[in-house]
Amino acid sequence: MDEQATGRAVRVEVGEGARAGARNDVTDVAGIRVGHAQRVGDGYRTGVTVVLPPAEGAVAGVDVRGAAPGTRETDLLDPRNMVERVHAIVLSGGSAYGLDAAGGVMHRLADAGVGLPVGAEAGEVVPIVPSAVLYDLGRGGRFRAVPDAGLGALACADAEDGGAVVRGSVGAATGALVGGLAGGVGSASLVLADGTTVGAVAAVNAAGSAVDPRTGALYGAHDGLDGEFPLSLPDRAELEAWGGPAAPGGFNTTIGVVATDLRLTKAQAAKLAGVAQDGLARAVRPAHTMVDGDTVFVLSTGEREGDLAAFQRLLSATASVFARTIADGVLHATGRPGAPSYRDVLPSAVSRDR
Amino acid sequence: MDEQATGRAVRVEVGEGARAGARNDVTDVAGIRVGHAQRVGDGYRTGVTVVLPPAEGAVAGVDVRGAAPGTRETDLLDPRNMVERVHAIVLSGGSAYGLDAAGGVMHRLADAGVGLPVGAEAGEVVPIVPSAVLYDLGRGGRFRAVPDAGLGALACADAEDGGAVVRGSVGAATGALVGGLAGGVGSASLVLADGTTVGAVAAVNAAGSAVDPRTGALYGAHDGLDGEFPLSLPDRAELEAWGGPAAPGGFNTTIGVVATDLRLTKAQAAKLAGVAQDGLARAVRPAHTMVDGDTVFVLSTGEREGDLAAFQRLLSATASVFARTIADGVLHATGRPGAPSYRDVLPSAVSRDR
Repeated sequence: MDEQATGRAVRVEVGEGARAGARNDVTDVAGIRVGHAQRVGDGYRTGVTVVLPPAEGAVAGVDVRGAAPGTRETDLLDPRNMVERVHAIVLSGGSAYGLDAAGGVMHRLADAGVGLPVGAEAGEVVPIVPSAVLYDLGRGGRFRAVPDAGLGALACADAEDGGAVVRGSVGAATGALVGGLAGGVGSASLVLADGTTVGAVAAVNAAGSAVDPRTGALYGAHDGLDGEFPLSLPDRAELEAWGGPAAPGGFNTTIGVVATDLRLTKAQAAKLAGVAQDGLARAVRPAHTMVDGDTVFVLSTGEREGDLAAFQRLLSATASVFARTIADGVLHATGRPGAPSYRDVLPSAVSRDR
Repeated sequence: MDEQATGRAVRVEVGEGARAGARNDVTDVAGIRVGHAQRVGDGYRTGVTVVLPPAEGAVAGVDVRGAAPGTRETDLLDPRNMVERVHAIVLSGGSAYGLDAAGGVMHRLADAGVGLPVGAEAGEVVPIVPSAVLYDLGRGGRFRAVPDAGLGALACADAEDGGAVVRGSVGAATGALVGGLAGGVGSASLVLADGTTVGAVAAVNAAGSAVDPRTGALYGAHDGLDGEFPLSLPDRAELEAWGGPAAPGGFNTTIGVVATDLRLTKAQAAKLAGVAQDGLARAVRPAHTMVDGDTVFVLSTGEREGDLAAFQRLLSATASVFARTIADGVLHATGRPGAPSYRDVLPSAVSRDR
């Protein structure tokens, strides 16, 4: 992926000379690790995705823009509040039941001594683990077959192992749907001309559609780098056979994490999370509905000093990275009975350019 | 308690003719139930308090005013968001680890079919269970001896049994401290002259002091009804022997729930939660510090129709009720080694008038 450079369409937004990182995923930001755990079968089709910053934590922010959010430990991210650094972000299926996954991650991190030091003794820590959940209840057949603390700890262990982000119908997106198609975990990155790296990972599960029903194109592909997404349109016959996205209904939610090495304040991290939601707005239509709890977290490892101009460049680049992340998740999803994938319904869109 | 009428000092704020409810606790609001579970020994000194509205839920709001909050499911309470009614509020010890207690309450309520209906089948519900935690780590001797889902479920079962609120060093306040004195669960209620009932319950655990070091009086007693709190000041010798409150330090947090039968919108519930924090500001000095996560929830059962004037009366009454709730919690706390109670250090303040 490292030869991918800025596509013509987005050059103004992300800057001349910007290109994808080596993996074109969020782990291109040094120190960021991502892991998944999922359970499929015996009534389950759900999972957990954990994003780990370096052990000392990362400055964080959040933007909750969907109207049906399920969250944990988001109030402490208010820039007025005390805690500066978080030690993990947990994205989970299971609707509000899935908020228990964060507890498993907390205890695993605390066992390793990772967290906010609060006691007199070494190891007396409280890991700061904000979390958001998406709605996938019943998608494996049993309504209350939901992630628990144990599944959260497994996803954390997987993240500790490092490696590139595993994409598709895994982790928090195991049971995901997007406009009636299978949803997935997507990831993307960008190295700006000034050297700043920004990446994102998201579990895409939306009431709206990620696919333009008029053309079959992924909405988020407009933000793609050269060669990143299919540019030719699918066959008309396939498009007509598909019949277009399912009408929005039921509960959903897209949740994600943006990471950057640019040093941000908490307030800047919150601002950046809000602008990342602009990428979701481009890539999913409609987004941020009353039945989506769309939530984006930001992690800043702070390795690179920056100024206002660098932050301004990062803002517009991040909206674009998040749109690519959404398209990537839908492109890598695996179909299942009742929920075909984008590749299943529009194979001609994918085969020609990948 | 039912003969307690408006004290002279607060008549302007709560209105002529206002009086305490039959129990002078939050369960005077019809349909509200409170339960506790705690664990003391084997390294533990912590617990959980659950507040249940009627099974159909209550319209809710929240105000997070301390700078070190630990919360779960608060974003959905933003008045812009979809969910209108919550099915329980969980107050827990254990700092952020204690957020797992809410999961136990969720599963217990779901087993009983209580929650937001989201599926096609009966019983396919997601209980909406916002939660806030307080810091009591290590107060039983073992740092990570914290509440879990099981303790949350026990507190929920206790709440289902109904009855008056058990006050003192129980539930979420089992390990609480207030300015170096033992903290406690307090509760109070008020029936306004227009018939509206408002009550509160809180677990008082604050960096600041609930006792005026110059006089030994409970700050919150100023808001007391006739005969509710000690009015005479403690002996000078006791006051000097005590030496005054501990200097603020470490982590703390006061968390509480206000309930009313007045019909409120979500936005009004959030407004009311903010004004309840004024009661905390009066009763604890300093309040809302960088090491407190002070959080107040509001539940409206909606039994009584009201207008703007009724809501305006409720606002000022609620600040007063919350101040009384704080004072009540400190007054009922039980001392323990290293954390004497108000009654222990200033017995003459309590004996004369109770």
